[in-house]
Formats: sequence, structure tokens, C-alpha cells
Amino acid sequence: MTKTPDSAVRSYIAQHQEAFLADLADWLRIPSVSADPDRAGDVRRSAEWLAEKLRGTGFPVVEVWETDGLPAVFAEWPAGEAGVPTVLVYGHHDVQPAAKADGWRTEPFEPTVVGNRLHARGAADDKGQVFFHTLGLRAHLAATGRSAPAVNLKLLIEGEEESGSPNFGALIRRQAERLAADLVVVSDTGMWDERTPTVCTGMRGKLDCQIDLTGPDSDIHSGSFGGAVPNPATTAAELAAALHDEQRRIALPGFYDGIVELTERERELFAKLPFDEAGWLATAKSHGLQGEAGYSTLERIWARPTAEVNGVWGGYTGPGTKTIVPAEAHLKLSFRLVAGQEPERIEQTVRDWVAARVPAGIGHRVHFGSITRPCLTPLDHPALRSTVRAMERAFEQEVLFTREGGSGPAADLRDVLGATVLFLGISVPSDGWHSVDEKVELDLLLKGVEAAAYLWGDLAENHR
Amino acid sequence: MTKTPDSAVRSYIAQHQEAFLADLADWLRIPSVSADPDRAGDVRRSAEWLAEKLRGTGFPVVEVWETDGLPAVFAEWPAGEAGVPTVLVYGHHDVQPAAKADGWRTEPFEPTVVGNRLHARGAADDKGQVFFHTLGLRAHLAATGRSAPAVNLKLLIEGEEESGSPNFGALIRRQAERLAADLVVVSDTGMWDERTPTVCTGMRGKLDCQIDLTGPDSDIHSGSFGGAVPNPATTAAELAAALHDEQRRIALPGFYDGIVELTERERELFAKLPFDEAGWLATAKSHGLQGEAGYSTLERIWARPTAEVNGVWGGYTGPGTKTIVPAEAHLKLSFRLVAGQEPERIEQTVRDWVAARVPAGIGHRVHFGSITRPCLTPLDHPALRSTVRAMERAFEQEVLFTREGGSGPAADLRDVLGATVLFLGISVPSDGWHSVDEKVELDLLLKGVEAAAYLWGDLAENHR
Ligand SMILES: [Zn+2]
Ligand SMILES: [Zn+2]
Repeated sequence: MTKTPDSAVRSYIAQHQEAFLADLADWLRIPSVSADPDRAGDVRRSAEWLAEKLRGTGFPVVEVWETDGLPAVFAEWPAGEAGVPTVLVYGHHDVQPAAKADGWRTEPFEPTVVGNRLHARGAADDKGQVFFHTLGLRAHLAATGRSAPAVNLKLLIEGEEESGSPNFGALIRRQAERLAADLVVVSDTGMWDERTPTVCTGMRGKLDCQIDLTGPDSDIHSGSFGGAVPNPATTAAELAAALHDEQRRIALPGFYDGIVELTERERELFAKLPFDEAGWLATAKSHGLQGEAGYSTLERIWARPTAEVNGVWGGYTGPGTKTIVPAEAHLKLSFRLVAGQEPERIEQTVRDWVAARVPAGIGHRVHFGSITRPCLTPLDHPALRSTVRAMERAFEQEVLFTREGGSGPAADLRDVLGATVLFLGISVPSDGWHSVDEKVELDLLLKGVEAAAYLWGDLAENHR
Repeated sequence: MTKTPDSAVRSYIAQHQEAFLADLADWLRIPSVSADPDRAGDVRRSAEWLAEKLRGTGFPVVEVWETDGLPAVFAEWPAGEAGVPTVLVYGHHDVQPAAKADGWRTEPFEPTVVGNRLHARGAADDKGQVFFHTLGLRAHLAATGRSAPAVNLKLLIEGEEESGSPNFGALIRRQAERLAADLVVVSDTGMWDERTPTVCTGMRGKLDCQIDLTGPDSDIHSGSFGGAVPNPATTAAELAAALHDEQRRIALPGFYDGIVELTERERELFAKLPFDEAGWLATAKSHGLQGEAGYSTLERIWARPTAEVNGVWGGYTGPGTKTIVPAEAHLKLSFRLVAGQEPERIEQTVRDWVAARVPAGIGHRVHFGSITRPCLTPLDHPALRSTVRAMERAFEQEVLFTREGGSGPAADLRDVLGATVLFLGISVPSDGWHSVDEKVELDLLLKGVEAAAYLWGDLAENHR
């Protein structure tokens, strides 16, 4: 096993980190806010800046890919030898909106170093975590003496992630051949905290719907008719209340069928994470815990499917009283799905369940939005082991595991390309994603560079 | 028993009905819309017009009573002999808004006779039904040869009923001594239909509340936190859904304790009413029946308490999707109450029930609005028997019974004065209360005059 000598990687990084951080600061100065139409030019400038930097890194193929919206950047660097895996790195170069007036202590688009922290919009989400791959790759080449990466390396850095990736699915389907990969490395997540390096093993999927319920043809007087005709607001409430049983398990028939259950090993490792309930509740801005019986909070948000009422409305909502049976009521629901749950099957389950529960005299329609599939890589998957080893070499300590409760476009890449999804990220919860004073911890950022430097060689060795 | 000769009453009415209808038309020309501040002068003019007419009828005491809002009219005519009951007639001289542009076929404030129908705003609700007491009283005097009514007669005709009677409670408490009565006759309801004279025996009470539920301090991401913290929209739904059991009975503990149950006789008589389910559903603009198991539709809306969701809201209600656990959710509920249910006790029941069901981590506040008490006069009450006889003599057919599902200020009169409440009304469902083309059937209006002419003598005989 030709292990990359850690000291060589480290000394290369030490020599080049100043220039690396200066380059990153340049990129962070470009306010590539995809949600703001006035910033479309900046998003394009950000793509072109990155393309130029990737050419400088040595990628022989670098292209700005147009979409119906904002451009993505694609780069490719073949290993130049047979029998090695092809790896696609995913990230995004667009950022959330930010303005000093929102309460930032520094100018969000003027990167500012304070101690170990680099403050700027996008420092962690996601420019910092995309950019660590450039120096990581150069360190990999320098330490191994290679002129090309140990794997066939591809990058796809999209420009609309913070706007919901509206054109991403179409793009990757159109470019599926050029994106073909055995593995996808998502660098758009993070780790447990500053002292606890972790690797994420999966993301939940998502299915959302709106249920429209109709009762009387118009609001009618509850004194004259109430108690003798069905009330659509009551039906909405009955549906929402029936989503869960008393164990807070989801009560839709067959909802849990086929799901990949947590292994004992995963539960043990999750339990090793230093979970501070009071701190977590403060982050959740919540005042109590509630969830599926038999699971911890982390298991509930990472590894169990959920059903959530995102919105409900019907009838009179103004001041005072209006004694009506309302003409209509509405529910917005979303379901988080875990590996083994086919969104299409769950969609049908929801439709059937609603139809079976709506009483005579109430009309109903159920509209589903877009689908995001769940993805999960088992703990014993060889490529996941490579990721863990790369992180452990960088951090020189045991690496634990997390999952992502949310849902991302990464699962699309798995579906379209048939690739296994890995996550490599060093951001921590205090980094302030989508919030004021976003930052990245500089020491962690350089650990990310280092882990990226180790990963390609390990994958080439262990994922043939 | 000195029964008023029916032929004398009828011939008196026949001689005077033309002048009576001309006077009513004058009154209907005054657009006494209490909800429209620009019509305050018209409401006052309406009160003064009525006061003048009551003086002409012979009432020795007629006063316009000021309130913090619009004026009421009070009149009094003692029987001049001891041992007779005191009766207070209740009605209102204000009307709902109306404009030809709303779709009326005639000018709403230009009374128009078409065949047997007098079209105008207020023709049935409530000027027509107040005014039949003037000719009725004169016919009573003429047919009996009396110079004063057979009972101590009082009238209270308010000017803000269509605006929710905001100052009525204060007025009757202030004037309780002058309003003192054994019986209240409410002439602001109606009967089953044109061919089915009925007497109403009671009204349901009402209690309404808003329940405010708070979860996270702001909307939080359902991917990151959903499934592990309680959702106030779910709590709102669970509360609303838990109001009823599977028999559609109200599930609050002790809710039905002490209620006056329907008697077998009442159920038999309700069942004799020609109930057309399809027609009723069309009036209710509804597409199905639903209600408490074991009761007919009429029993459900007249004689059973109900719990209704008048409004519900929380979370995201715009287009598309927002995957949040909402910070708050709200419910507006109203309860219709029947005789035997103390609103104050039910209020406490609701407060306790909410407090017991809201999970840890969800805050709650319950705000109650104004209370309306239920009222009910038993079928065998002597004064109710008098009302039935008066109606049977006027209509020359069997009189059946109804109740009123809604809730009115009449119950306040019962509570403040300790009086038994009777209902005398001849309006029919097709009269279009609060709607376009309001009308009164002229033959029924004159039957109302006739029943009013018989009532005082019968009460004097039978309610000593
Ligand atoms: Zn991101
Ligand atoms: Zn009325």
C-alpha cells in the first residue's frame, strides 16, 4: 500500500496556504447570490472565476455549463491509467443573500479574518468547502509525485443550489454521459463540531404535498347548519392529527415498509457524539422534545422518516369571531424519507390514505411537489471507509458519523449516475449557514484541504 | 273563559289592514342600516317613526332610549288591573345593508308588492314582525272591548341587532326595573314554512374562543429539526380533531352533563315537520350530512350542542413549499350550547381540556369572547300553550314546534329579567333574511297580526 506520506502533504499545504486563502478571499468578494436577479452577473462572474482557477490547478478540461438559469462549472482530470474509480465532486458557487444591514458585524462580501475565523458569506456554504479541493488536489499530486490524480476526477459546481436547484436535474440528465462516475463526493455539508470530526453517511429524501378540502359552496352560518354538515377545517385537522399515532409513529399504512433500519453499530456511534440537549434545543429555538418513541433525537432527525405540517389554513382568521362552517381548508405537509422508501410509493400511500379518510360531503384534491430521494452509504462500504481514513489522517483522531436530516440534490446525482454518494465536509454548526456572520474555522478548512489530499489515493487503492 | 271572538278580530283586521300595510311601507322606506355609520341618522329616524306610531296605537308611555350606539324604543301599556302577567315584546328596528346593485329585483328601500309578497329590506327581519303587534293590539282591544291590554304590555325594539347588539346587555341591565316582566315574547324568528305554522321553543347559546399555540421561537427548518420537536400546527390539528369522537359526540369531559334532553314528545313533533333533506342541503350549500350519532338533522341543529372549527391557521400558506416547523398556530372555535349547559362551566372545561392536551414544548393561551346563554321553554309551559293556541286560532290548523339553532340577545332578557321566553313569528325560510329580495308573505303577516291579537287574552287567562 503506497500511502501518501502525511508529512509531505502537510508541508505542501503549509507552503501554499497563504496564497490559497488569498484566492478564496477573492472568490468570496464576488456576491454570487442566486436568489437575486440583479446578481445574475455576479453568479456568472463567480463561475468564470472558478473555471479560471481550476485551469490554474491543472484540470485539462474546464467548462462553464449553461442552464435555463445560472451557470455551473464542470472540470475533469483523468487519472491516465485504467482500473481506477471515477469520482465526481459536487458543490455550489452561489450563496445566500447577505447585507451588513441584516446585522453582520463585518461586510459579508469583504472577507475578514478574526483570529482563526474567516468571515464572509459563502466562507463555509459552500465556496470554502469547494475550494479546499484545489489545494487538496495539488498537495495530493506533490506528495505522490503524480502528474494526474490517482482517480479520474470530475467536479460539478452548480450555481443555483441556494435557489432550490431548479435546473440541476435537467442539467445532469442532459450531461449524464460526461458526468458518469462511480462515486460522488458531496462537499456541501459539515461535521459534528470543532472537536468532533465526523463523516456524513446519508441524507433524507423529501416529498411534499398540499391537500385542498372543500365543504359548503361558501362559508355558512354555524348556528343554522353547524353540527349537521361536515366542516372542511375539521377534516383538515383530523387528517393532520391522524398522521401520527400515540407513539409519534407515522400512522399511514405501510409507511415504514422496506426502510433501511439503523444498525446497532450506527446507534452506538451516534450515541458517542457529545450531544447537548439544551444546546440543541436552543439551536432548534424549541422548548421541548417530541418524536417517535424508541429513538434518540439524533436518530429521529437523521435516520427516521417524518411527517410534518408545514402550513394549515381555513375559515375566519381575523380579529374577533365569525361563527361559520368554512367553505374550504388546506394543509401543506412534507414527509422526510429514509433509504428504502420509494417516494412514488409513499405518494400513492398518501393519496389513498386521504381518500379513505375524507368524509362524505367534503371534496378533496392532493397536489404533490417535487421529489427528493433519500440516499445512504453503509458504514462498511469500502469508499466510505476511505473517506473516514482520509479524515482520520487529517484530524489524527477517531472520526464518528452523522447523517443529514435535510434533503439535497446529491440524491439526484446518485439516481441519474448510479453512483455511491460520499460526503466530505469540515464546516461546523456554528458557521452560520444562511445566517449573519457566516464564517469558516481556518484550521478546519486546512484539515479539509488535507483530507481531500488523502482521499484520492485511498479510493484508488481500495475501490478498484 | 272569555275567549276573544275570532270573527271580531278578523273583521277588525280586514278593515284596517290597508292602512297597516301603508304604514309599514313608510317605515320600510327608512334605511335603518345599523352597520353603516352613514345611516346612523336613518336608524334614529326609524326609532322616532316607531315611537310616534306606538303613541298612535295608544301606548301611554313611549320613549326613545339612548345607548352608547344607536337608539332603542321602549313602550309600556299597563293592563290597569291586578293579577295579570307582564309581557315584554322584543324585536329590532335596524336592518341589514341592502342595495339594488347586490342583485335585488326591486329597490330594497322602496317597498313593492308583488302578488302576496311585500318586498323590502326589513319586511320580515324585523320590521314586519315588530309591526304586526300594533294592529294585533288594536284588534285585541276592539274585539274584547277593553281600553287597555289584558296583560301589562311592554315593548323593547332595539336598533343594533344586526350589528351584534353591542350595547344591548348594558341597556337592559341599566333599565332592568322598567323592563321587569314575567314573559318575553320574541318576534324576530319565523316558522317552518308557508304551509306549516310552528312555534319556536328555544335558542341555543354560544361560547367562542381563540386558542393560540406557540412552538419554536421562529419558523425552523423541518429537515434539520422536524420529527424531534413538537409542531404547534400539529397540536392545533390534534385539538380540533379531538373535539369529536367517532360518533361525532363532543369528547370534552363532562360536556353533556346536565343538559336538558329532548323529550320523546318533542322528537315525535319534530319528526312530523315536512323535512326535505335535499332542499335543506341546498340551503346549507353543503354536499353531505354529518353529525352526532342517534339524532336527526333537525335535532342536531336545534337541540344538541356542537363544537365547530370556525378558523384555523399556522405556518406557510403561500404558493409552493416551505419546509418548516411553524412558530405558531391558531384555532377559532365556537360551541353552541343547549339548556342545562352553563357557559362558564363549559369555558372552564375547554380551558382544562386544552391545558391537558397540549404537549410539553408548546405554549398555549385560550381567549374567550362573549357568552350567549341557551334558552328553552318546555312544551307544557302554560305560556307556551297560550302561544300555540293563539297561532292555531290564526292558522286554523295544528301548530308544530321548532327551535332556533343560532343564538340571540333574547337569552339576555331571560337572564337579566328572570322571564320565560316565548317566540311569536310568521316569517318563513324563503323570506331571504340578510339576503337579496327579502320579502314577507302578506297572508302570513296578517296571520301574525291575528295571533298577536289572541295572545294577550289567552296569557291573561292562563298565566296568572
Ligand atoms: Zn450549500
Ligand atoms: Zn332580526
